[in-house]
Amino acid sequence: MLANPFIPTAATVTDLLSPLHAGEHRLFILDQTRLPFTCCELELRTAAQVHHAIAHMQVRGAPLIGAVGAFGLALALREAADDAALRAACEWLGGARPTAVNLHWALRRTHDAVLGLPPAQRAAAAWQEALAIVEQDRADNAAIGRHGLHWLRQLAPRGERINIMTHCNAGWLATTGHGTALAPVYAAHAAGLPVHVWVSETRPRNQGLLTAWELRQAGVAHTLLADNAAAELMRRGQVDALIVGADRIAANGDTANKVGTCLKALAAAAHALPFLVAAPWTTFDWNCADGSAIPIEERDADEMRLIATGSGPARLCEGATAIANPAFDITAAALIRAFITPSGVISPQGIQEYYPQDEN
Amino acid sequence: MLANPFIPTAATVTDLLSPLHAGEHRLFILDQTRLPFTCCELELRTAAQVHHAIAHMQVRGAPLIGAVGAFGLALALREAADDAALRAACEWLGGARPTAVNLHWALRRTHDAVLGLPPAQRAAAAWQEALAIVEQDRADNAAIGRHGLHWLRQLAPRGERINIMTHCNAGWLATTGHGTALAPVYAAHAAGLPVHVWVSETRPRNQGLLTAWELRQAGVAHTLLADNAAAELMRRGQVDALIVGADRIAANGDTANKVGTCLKALAAAAHALPFLVAAPWTTFDWNCADGSAIPIEERDADEMRLIATGSGPARLCEGATAIANPAFDITAAALIRAFITPSGVISPQGIQEYYPQDEN
Repeated sequence: MLANPFIPTAATVTDLLSPLHAGEHRLFILDQTRLPFTCCELELRTAAQVHHAIAHMQVRGAPLIGAVGAFGLALALREAADDAALRAACEWLGGARPTAVNLHWALRRTHDAVLGLPPAQRAAAAWQEALAIVEQDRADNAAIGRHGLHWLRQLAPRGERINIMTHCNAGWLATTGHGTALAPVYAAHAAGLPVHVWVSETRPRNQGLLTAWELRQAGVAHTLLADNAAAELMRRGQVDALIVGADRIAANGDTANKVGTCLKALAAAAHALPFLVAAPWTTFDWNCADGSAIPIEERDADEMRLIATGSGPARLCEGATAIANPAFDITAAALIRAFITPSGVISPQGIQEYYPQDEN
Repeated sequence: MLANPFIPTAATVTDLLSPLHAGEHRLFILDQTRLPFTCCELELRTAAQVHHAIAHMQVRGAPLIGAVGAFGLALALREAADDAALRAACEWLGGARPTAVNLHWALRRTHDAVLGLPPAQRAAAAWQEALAIVEQDRADNAAIGRHGLHWLRQLAPRGERINIMTHCNAGWLATTGHGTALAPVYAAHAAGLPVHVWVSETRPRNQGLLTAWELRQAGVAHTLLADNAAAELMRRGQVDALIVGADRIAANGDTANKVGTCLKALAAAAHALPFLVAAPWTTFDWNCADGSAIPIEERDADEMRLIATGSGPARLCEGATAIANPAFDITAAALIRAFITPSGVISPQGIQEYYPQDEN
C-alpha cells in the first residue's frame, strides 16, 4: 500500500516529503481522504480541481490549504486574469473553507502581488508567489521546530522521556514543511530526546490516524487514544505537555483549531499542564479582536454518518437522526500557556508586540 | 430490522421495554453490540454465558449489569452452591467488569441473601433476589425521573425548550427501567415539556448511537454530535444543562462514568452550566473515599481499531500503532452541580447525609 514512490517507506525526519509538489502548470497532492489506508497522488490542473480538493479535504491543514489556494489562484488566472476575474477567483477559492485564515491570507498576498501587473503576466507571477509562500512556510516550520525543541529541552532538562499530547494532524501532511505542532516533536526526535506522542483520534474525520501514520514512518513513539480519553491520561500523570496547531488566532490570542481542541485545553488547565499552540504568523488574524469574531465552519452531516475505513466507507448511523458537525472550536487565550511561533515561544500577552504596523 | 417483537416499533415512553427479561432458569437480553443496526435477542442459560455477555458488553450500563450479574449468580448456584462455590462465583462474575460498582453491589446483596440458606435452596433464592433487584431498579429509575422532571421544570419555568446534553447511554438500554440520565428526559417528554437532547457519539464504543436509537423510538427531539463538539455547542449557548449517568460514585462525590464525561464536566464549568449525575444509590460506593480509589477498566485495543458499522465491523487503523483505551474517567465532585437520586436532587455535599449507618 505504501509502494507509491511519492511517500518514503523508511522515512527519517529529513526524508519527509511534502504533501504538495508543484509541476509545470499543475499541482500534485496526496489525497488525504484516502490516507492512511491508501496512498494516492492526485494531479490538479484547474482552479476548480483545487477548490474541490480544499473543500473536500483532499488537502487539509491551515498552512497547506493556504499554499494550495495560492496555486489555485494562479491556475484560475490562466483562464481569466482581468481585475474582476482576479477578485472573483480570490473570493471563490476563499469560500472553499472559511475558518483557517491562512487560505485567505495566501490568496490576498498573491492577489496583491499580481494586481499591478498586466493581466497576461499575472498567472506566471501568481505561480511564483505561491512558490514563495511554500518556501516561507517551510522556513516557518523549521523555526517553529527549533524554538519548540528549545522549550522541550527546558521541560526535560535531564533528558527524561517527554509525553506530548496533540490533537488532529499538524504534521508534514498539514503544511509544506515538517508541520507546526509536530515540528518540535520531529526536532526533538532528531536531536535524540526520548519523546512519546499521545495521538487523539479526532472524530469525525479521524485526522489522528494521519498523525499516527506520520509518526510511525518517522519512528517516533506514539499511542492512539479516543478523544474522550484525554482527561483520564492527564489525571494519571501520563501527559507532560500539549501542543496543537491552529486554524486562526485572534488578536487577543483566542485560537480556533480542530473541534475538540478546547476540551483538551480545559483538561490541561485543570491538571496544570502547559498547553501550547504552534503556528506561523500567517495563522494570526489581527482583524479578529477575539474568538467570537472567528467564523466556525459547519461541515456536512455525512462526515458523522459515514466513516472512512480500511475496507472503504462504512455507515455509522441512520439518516433519521439530526447531526451537528462544527469543524472547529475556540480555545480561550487564558487556557494557552504560549504560542510556538517562527519568532520564538511567546505568551498570549506577548503576541501583541508582533501586531503589524501596517494592518488596520 | 426492527420487526423483532422484543422491541416496540412505535414506542411511547410507557411502551419502552427492558433490555432484560427473566424466563424459567434463563435470561433473555438484547445483544447491545449489534444495536442499533440489528435487533437481536440472546438467551443466557449459564453463568458462563452471563459472564461473557457482561465482559463483552452485550449487556452494559451500570444498573443493568448489576441485575444481570445477580441472575448470573443464581445460574452459577444451579451448578454448585456450597459456600466456596458461592464465593467463587461472586468473585468470578464481579471480575467481568471492574468499574461499575452496581455489579459488585448486586452480587454481594444476592450472596448475603442466600448465604444462610441450605445450598439446595440457594439458586432459587438468588433468582428471587435478582428479581427484587430488578424491581428496585425500576422504582429507582421512576423516582429519578420524577425528581429530575421537577428540576427541569425549575430550569424552564415558562415551558421554554430545554437543551440537555448527555454522554454515552444511560437510558432504558442501560437499566431495567426507563434509565438514569434519560429518565428525567422521558418524564419531561411525557409531561409535554419541549426537550431536546444533544447526544454525544461516545467513542470508542459509540453508545451515543444507542441513545439516539432510544430517543428516536420515543419521539424525543435529539441531535447527534462528535464528542469533540461539546464545548463549541456550549460556547454558542445551545446547551442548558448536562445530565449523565454514573458507574461508581465515591463518598466525596467524585464520579466515574464513561470516558469523556470529565471533559464535558470541565466544559460545563467553563460555561457556568449545570452538570448533573443521575444515579440510584446502588451506584454510590461509600468505601471509596474519593475518585482515586475507583478502579478504571482498560479495555481491548481492538475497540479502537475495529468499529461496528451498519455493514459489519470495519477496520479503522493498523495494528502497528499502540492504543490506550481507558473505559471510564473521573469527574471531580467540584464539577458536579447535583446528583439526581431516588431520594431527590442532592448536592455533592448533601450526599454525606445518606451515608449508610451500617457500612464500614
